[in-house]
Amino acid sequence: MNPPPTGATVADVGEFALIGLIRERLGTSGLIVGPGDDAAEIAEPGGSFLISSDLLVEGRHFRRDWSSADDIGRKAAAANLSDINAMGGSASALTVSLGIPGDTEVAWVLQLADGLAAECSAVGAEIAGGDVTAADQVIVAVTAVGSAERTVRRDAGAAGDVVAVAGDLGLAGAGFAALSRGFRSPRAAVDAHRVPHPPYEAGPQAAAAGASAMIDVSDGLLADLDHIARASGVVIDLESTLFEIPEPVSTVADALGSDPLTFILTGGDDYGLVALFPSGIPDGWTRVGAARHPSIGEDAGVLVDGMAFEGSPGHQHFR
Amino acid sequence: MNPPPTGATVADVGEFALIGLIRERLGTSGLIVGPGDDAAEIAEPGGSFLISSDLLVEGRHFRRDWSSADDIGRKAAAANLSDINAMGGSASALTVSLGIPGDTEVAWVLQLADGLAAECSAVGAEIAGGDVTAADQVIVAVTAVGSAERTVRRDAGAAGDVVAVAGDLGLAGAGFAALSRGFRSPRAAVDAHRVPHPPYEAGPQAAAAGASAMIDVSDGLLADLDHIARASGVVIDLESTLFEIPEPVSTVADALGSDPLTFILTGGDDYGLVALFPSGIPDGWTRVGAARHPSIGEDAGVLVDGMAFEGSPGHQHFR
Repeated sequence: MNPPPTGATVADVGEFALIGLIRERLGTSGLIVGPGDDAAEIAEPGGSFLISSDLLVEGRHFRRDWSSADDIGRKAAAANLSDINAMGGSASALTVSLGIPGDTEVAWVLQLADGLAAECSAVGAEIAGGDVTAADQVIVAVTAVGSAERTVRRDAGAAGDVVAVAGDLGLAGAGFAALSRGFRSPRAAVDAHRVPHPPYEAGPQAAAAGASAMIDVSDGLLADLDHIARASGVVIDLESTLFEIPEPVSTVADALGSDPLTFILTGGDDYGLVALFPSGIPDGWTRVGAARHPSIGEDAGVLVDGMAFEGSPGHQHFR
Repeated sequence: MNPPPTGATVADVGEFALIGLIRERLGTSGLIVGPGDDAAEIAEPGGSFLISSDLLVEGRHFRRDWSSADDIGRKAAAANLSDINAMGGSASALTVSLGIPGDTEVAWVLQLADGLAAECSAVGAEIAGGDVTAADQVIVAVTAVGSAERTVRRDAGAAGDVVAVAGDLGLAGAGFAALSRGFRSPRAAVDAHRVPHPPYEAGPQAAAAGASAMIDVSDGLLADLDHIARASGVVIDLESTLFEIPEPVSTVADALGSDPLTFILTGGDDYGLVALFPSGIPDGWTRVGAARHPSIGEDAGVLVDGMAFEGSPGHQHFR
């Protein structure tokens, strides 16, 4: 990666380039799976385990006037449990570090803890520890750990694989769009933005079914699938007619005069899964496209109905 | 623990009470060591491992005008590697989530990554992954994982145990006091505040020597040792004459007209270790006191020369 010009800011280069530059600085020789996947896989005496960390920041990932403390806790846990799910694994524990302004009510913090614990108990995981410190805005830093019988990475997708999705797509994005314009409905979309429902069984299911590559959709389907396409060196072509459009997504799109498919393809925060399968897809997964070799001179990447998608593929921080 | 009054803020109750209240809300039945120790111990198929998380916030834990990015990275890594050390373990990996204002220079962030990597390599650990997101202030959320042949907790100290310390005490606190008053010297103290040097060998050494309880000194010796005393149900009596006073600590105390012992007893951020030993202390450790049963009506806690210490025992957030 080319070094940025002297004095360049993180806003100048954007989240993904910044992560790439950081990764170049770090040695990661002893890891089974290192930085750049949903979770890292670390060898310890006796076995390996998966670990993933996310930082949720007030005003960027949640708003206290839109979401209850319980909702924020559930979402923070879900985002991290989803990373273990996206490796084909099951989470066993979270650590949670909280940054909290001093004038925050204790009751609010305890409801946040309740939400974290409730989401964990849905997958049989526990809160193992953490940290509490003073900060200017609410910060929720979560690390999830777990293990997988078979780990599914991002970089082993192959030409000929079927692309399939599991869980919600576009629902949280439609909810965010509605909330941003002052609406509190449709309820299913708004609720999905507040508390996503990752398909926790689908990750280990895909691993058992032989998935070659998998990622969870946190930034947007096109943005996240692009990570798989580039890491695997394939072109992924999605067929727009294969996506089911949930009714609340249509409702929001109609109200805003936008295309519902845009929410499906670029909406984040649902923590659904997208995976590539060499042969057959498991029950509950929906086929949405296929992977192929790049043509001569063509870059690895994601197409929709054979064409580059017009518009932003999803969320990128600092941009 | 009594619930706080309705409307109470985290500033009203303070860090330790808040952590106690949160811990009451969380179920932790399946963990070998749960929240409330330096690190949690989690069982996974094939073995157990240690995990600990800390959140460092600009303006609270570091200042960009006092410390270089490299220094801040080293300190963030050291604080978390120290938690694994304090369990008697060795760290294998860190995850690091960064919150960064958009106008931060990329070069600064890469130097922070260099500092994190350098401190990790000092103990043979690696950066396994993390997250980067936009935030109003610089946030460094670190999780360390590792393993121990024998885990040393906080709650198994016993009457008759010898209390001993390893590593620096008071040096970083003296450096902080000097920097706070606009001084840039004595260099050894100021440098210790910027980049602590935890005694990474001393943790596993104490575990092998049969230590009954151990903690790292991050908030201050009295504050941290109080956690051991209460968890173990003992009174710990320190003998002030047994502490070595480093020359830079004396220099700062003289300049400020304060007692150097106060830095030793209440200064944080050196990440030295204090441990209880049933029989004999290892090379490199210094005996500083002993544990005994509480007298009738006496609470578990820490005394200095048989008396309660006057003044703050160390740092507590929100207070």
